[in-house]
Amino acid sequence: MNKLILVTNDDSIHAKGIKELVAVAKLFGQVVVVAPEKPQSGMGHAITISNPLRIQKYDGFNDVEAYECSGTPVDCVKIAIFEILKRKPDILLSGINHGENSSTNVLYSGTMSAAIEGAMESIPSIGFSLADFDADANFEATKNIAHQIIDKVIQNGLPENTCLNVNVPKLSMKDIKGIKVCAQAHAYWDDKFDSRLDQFGRPYYWLTGDFSDMDQRENTDLFALKNNFATVVPTHFDLTNYNAIENLKYLEK
Amino acid sequence: MNKLILVTNDDSIHAKGIKELVAVAKLFGQVVVVAPEKPQSGMGHAITISNPLRIQKYDGFNDVEAYECSGTPVDCVKIAIFEILKRKPDILLSGINHGENSSTNVLYSGTMSAAIEGAMESIPSIGFSLADFDADANFEATKNIAHQIIDKVIQNGLPENTCLNVNVPKLSMKDIKGIKVCAQAHAYWDDKFDSRLDQFGRPYYWLTGDFSDMDQRENTDLFALKNNFATVVPTHFDLTNYNAIENLKYLEK
Repeated sequence: MNKLILVTNDDSIHAKGIKELVAVAKLFGQVVVVAPEKPQSGMGHAITISNPLRIQKYDGFNDVEAYECSGTPVDCVKIAIFEILKRKPDILLSGINHGENSSTNVLYSGTMSAAIEGAMESIPSIGFSLADFDADANFEATKNIAHQIIDKVIQNGLPENTCLNVNVPKLSMKDIKGIKVCAQAHAYWDDKFDSRLDQFGRPYYWLTGDFSDMDQRENTDLFALKNNFATVVPTHFDLTNYNAIENLKYLEK
Repeated sequence: MNKLILVTNDDSIHAKGIKELVAVAKLFGQVVVVAPEKPQSGMGHAITISNPLRIQKYDGFNDVEAYECSGTPVDCVKIAIFEILKRKPDILLSGINHGENSSTNVLYSGTMSAAIEGAMESIPSIGFSLADFDADANFEATKNIAHQIIDKVIQNGLPENTCLNVNVPKLSMKDIKGIKVCAQAHAYWDDKFDSRLDQFGRPYYWLTGDFSDMDQRENTDLFALKNNFATVVPTHFDLTNYNAIENLKYLEK
């Protein structure tokens, strides 16, 4: 059972979270890391079309083969498969992200976009995120949960065209009540811009905002996280709202 | 019925496609354009977190208020709502994209990510794309179809949390058989990298590839486009694969 495991992230190859994920991944097979050379948070499913990509060997993982890439997380997945490994890995792991990627944040998340790209390539793929932005966050509980989930996914596979979005609350393992398989909550950012003047008197705008959970359902990832569960959302890339097709047939007239 | 209409795109404020869309939008109300200063194709749902944004008045639309923004298409939507308009527009139009955004391309598309961001803000939002990458493409048929669809959407609204992904084949209006409301096809890019050496002998990698349609269904956008229909896919931002939740409950044990 010597699996080929691709590890990537969006916080960059220098982040603590990816080192912690590699430590877990090594228990399951041969690990290759291909991760962004610079932080790529919020890059969503961006790819680099108008510029070439660069890759460089990276020796920060001791005995693990690793490459830093100039592109986005999705670029890392593509170049890993088609240029570095020259094959699909048996499993793709993304993270551990410094910060939560629950609810609609999945759309902005480079961590999860890498996992979604894996699913598009029919690779069992899992994104892991810890609800702690600290660069030196404690990943022990997330590693424990990641170990459990990777083990089960290797044994059972994943449903077709579906990856997993795993989020872990900022708690020690003994305070985490368990793992819940959930729906993506419908929450949103109440955006604001911090607008200031630069040294030349020209305005600039910096995105900020507060997060609002409007979802009343009790089967969501946000609900479970608030109740001290780690969460797993089966995430796919078919964005069709099938229920709406019939209602919109009037557009055909 | 003087609607406030926000127009954006991903090919940049200088593209022909957005000028053509503004010409249609003006027939329905007061238009404000907020679009990227540079091309942002393939940016997906990326947002700018680690840098500030700049906006600048742009006078290329004659009597239409317009701003170019240093950020991504999703940044344009956010800064338009929260900093420029200081309110939500009544409708958001994105495009007309130079090139198709059918099937899974919706995930990479800046055009569609702007529309999805609009849907997240509960704004009736539509992304338009023409299957022609030419900078001087002929947008006449797309404008005709956009007019029909915008008219109906203003009258009827859109289902909750759902925007429209409209794609138009590269045909004259008389050869387009009609409009079909469809599902997003499951197709994928068979990626390749064009690998060369630069002037210093260092390798660089440029993303390329062929598009493969594996979907056997006849209700998809790709199927309809191949049969000379314009397509509308109701697109939402809930990526949960609900059918998989029950199957994955074993992860809770």
